[in-house]
Amino acid sequence: MANPLTPEVLADPVALTRALVDIESVSRNEKEIADCVEEVLRTAPHLTVDRYGNTVMARTDLGRAQRVVLAGHLDTVPHNDNFPSRLDGDLIYGCGTSDMKSGVAFALHLAVTVTEPRFDATYFFYDAEEIEDRYNGLKLVAEAHPEWLAADFAVLLEPTYGMVEAGCQGTMRATVSTTGRRAHAARAWRGVNAIHAAAEVLDRLRAYEARTVTIDGCVYREGLNAVRINGGVAGNVVPDRCEVEVNYRFAPDRSEEEAQAHVREVFEGFEVEVTDSAGGALPGLTQAPAREFLAAVGEEPVAKLGWTDVARFAGLGIPALNFGPGDPNLAHAPDEHVEIGKIRDGAATLHRWLALS
Amino acid sequence: MANPLTPEVLADPVALTRALVDIESVSRNEKEIADCVEEVLRTAPHLTVDRYGNTVMARTDLGRAQRVVLAGHLDTVPHNDNFPSRLDGDLIYGCGTSDMKSGVAFALHLAVTVTEPRFDATYFFYDAEEIEDRYNGLKLVAEAHPEWLAADFAVLLEPTYGMVEAGCQGTMRATVSTTGRRAHAARAWRGVNAIHAAAEVLDRLRAYEARTVTIDGCVYREGLNAVRINGGVAGNVVPDRCEVEVNYRFAPDRSEEEAQAHVREVFEGFEVEVTDSAGGALPGLTQAPAREFLAAVGEEPVAKLGWTDVARFAGLGIPALNFGPGDPNLAHAPDEHVEIGKIRDGAATLHRWLALS
Repeated sequence: MANPLTPEVLADPVALTRALVDIESVSRNEKEIADCVEEVLRTAPHLTVDRYGNTVMARTDLGRAQRVVLAGHLDTVPHNDNFPSRLDGDLIYGCGTSDMKSGVAFALHLAVTVTEPRFDATYFFYDAEEIEDRYNGLKLVAEAHPEWLAADFAVLLEPTYGMVEAGCQGTMRATVSTTGRRAHAARAWRGVNAIHAAAEVLDRLRAYEARTVTIDGCVYREGLNAVRINGGVAGNVVPDRCEVEVNYRFAPDRSEEEAQAHVREVFEGFEVEVTDSAGGALPGLTQAPAREFLAAVGEEPVAKLGWTDVARFAGLGIPALNFGPGDPNLAHAPDEHVEIGKIRDGAATLHRWLALS
Repeated sequence: MANPLTPEVLADPVALTRALVDIESVSRNEKEIADCVEEVLRTAPHLTVDRYGNTVMARTDLGRAQRVVLAGHLDTVPHNDNFPSRLDGDLIYGCGTSDMKSGVAFALHLAVTVTEPRFDATYFFYDAEEIEDRYNGLKLVAEAHPEWLAADFAVLLEPTYGMVEAGCQGTMRATVSTTGRRAHAARAWRGVNAIHAAAEVLDRLRAYEARTVTIDGCVYREGLNAVRINGGVAGNVVPDRCEVEVNYRFAPDRSEEEAQAHVREVFEGFEVEVTDSAGGALPGLTQAPAREFLAAVGEEPVAKLGWTDVARFAGLGIPALNFGPGDPNLAHAPDEHVEIGKIRDGAATLHRWLALS
């Protein structure tokens, strides 16, 4: 098959977005798109290319004082009657248009067209972001070859609708349990009802006042929510156990350990088991490449509330932010689309920041 | 196979209990035991015998002013390494010893040995009490031939450990639901958490003060309990629905309609759907056969708190009580057993009440 990523397509981020969307790449099926991306990167004399599974990297080595990473994932969620792409006025519809092939188009366009960036640049195209953690190409490379990701600043091209979303909140899940004593429901006073005991757990959740934390001008709004509740033995039995699963979204000024301690304190007196935890990422907007990036965008950054792969960069000690043309609210939706104007504006912004002239 | 219910065995309620236990009769497999029971009843010249499926009835027709029913079910729950019976000192162990072949032995023993009862007597041996309602032999006969059950008073030989347990409480189940609005847990303030809203439902349950009602000297203790709770969409979603299943056990001075109205009142403001309901039975201890029965037993009656088939007799307008030698706490237990002394005492009590001399 001829590579659809021709020089003409690579020169135009809008055409490149469509071309990338039209290469099917549902998670675990990224070989074809990775092959196409690798091939065009290898034709650029100013880049050194590496590959790890279906993750492709390219880097300049111009001896700049600082290095930046531009990263995007190649995979999409499964199609939903939205493949291939279609144009409707100023909108490109299709699976991956927003999340995040328009962002990937930015990185690929810059990689082949900006031959002399102001910072040394690492372009990182990875697989399996939309599925289980263990397949995530960024995670796998960070474990196997952390040196490939060494940088002073990273831009993750996730959909932000042209805004800068900095850092990200952490997330943890815990199971808060109540116990009781079983009894026949006809003689309930012989038992202790664990579901009734969960009233106190829910009362505390209902009364909980979440923090709002401002860091580097970004406002992080926390939340503590029951996401599941389960209890009961049979229709005629006083139940002896009830479990409430809570999800705590915490601002990046708190470590995972502090977040856990906080949840244990909120539910003091109850059994609390942490089942899942991922730390947040500080926005890290004080370094030169980040400050210059913000100047190029010309807008105040806002806090990223959901957890994203910027936290993986944070885990490597690299400040990172999200910036992409897609609308995050359209990600994974059947009517997913991206505005052509947002692609053009975003590409121009990145050029302003990265290109020497 | 020779019928193990020989005249010598029928003359001794203890031997008869063992013989009945040793005829396997797990629900839906009652043919053999029903055949044995029918055969011995047909040999008694003072009885008229009928059969409906595996339910066997025998009656005297002496023209007495009043008629009583003695009823017991022939089936047992599945065995649990407790078949056949074994003797250990004064105890008979085995599946059905308590629930309720020792009670069935009472009825069968009286049927063949008391040729001239003080009241006309209907002896009723039915199948499928331990399983789904639709198989219940008492229910089926009550629907097909209610005249076979016509009587002024009924004794159900369910295990009561030699006490008189009168009437029974009603039971109803309802689902109390809360609704909310889904949102991503990272932006929880955009949603309304239905599990948090269930705090109020559990608070009302926790604060609920159950009635205690005394009828004919029997104390009925009500109860309102959550028996199941369920809510949640996914680990990162603010849930939009939570369901609490409650079970209300109500004294027989309340009708099913009153019970439902009460539960709706307790959970006013919430969606309440009644999923299951069975009325209770008044103890009805003021009629002559009941008063004489109590005199023969010589002890105060106590309230039956669980729902039993006495409510079916109540549905036919027949006052009914539970009286049997087994310990209700041992019913369905692997170590189910019955005390030989309780069998002898109970049989003597019933003789005192029913036999003319």
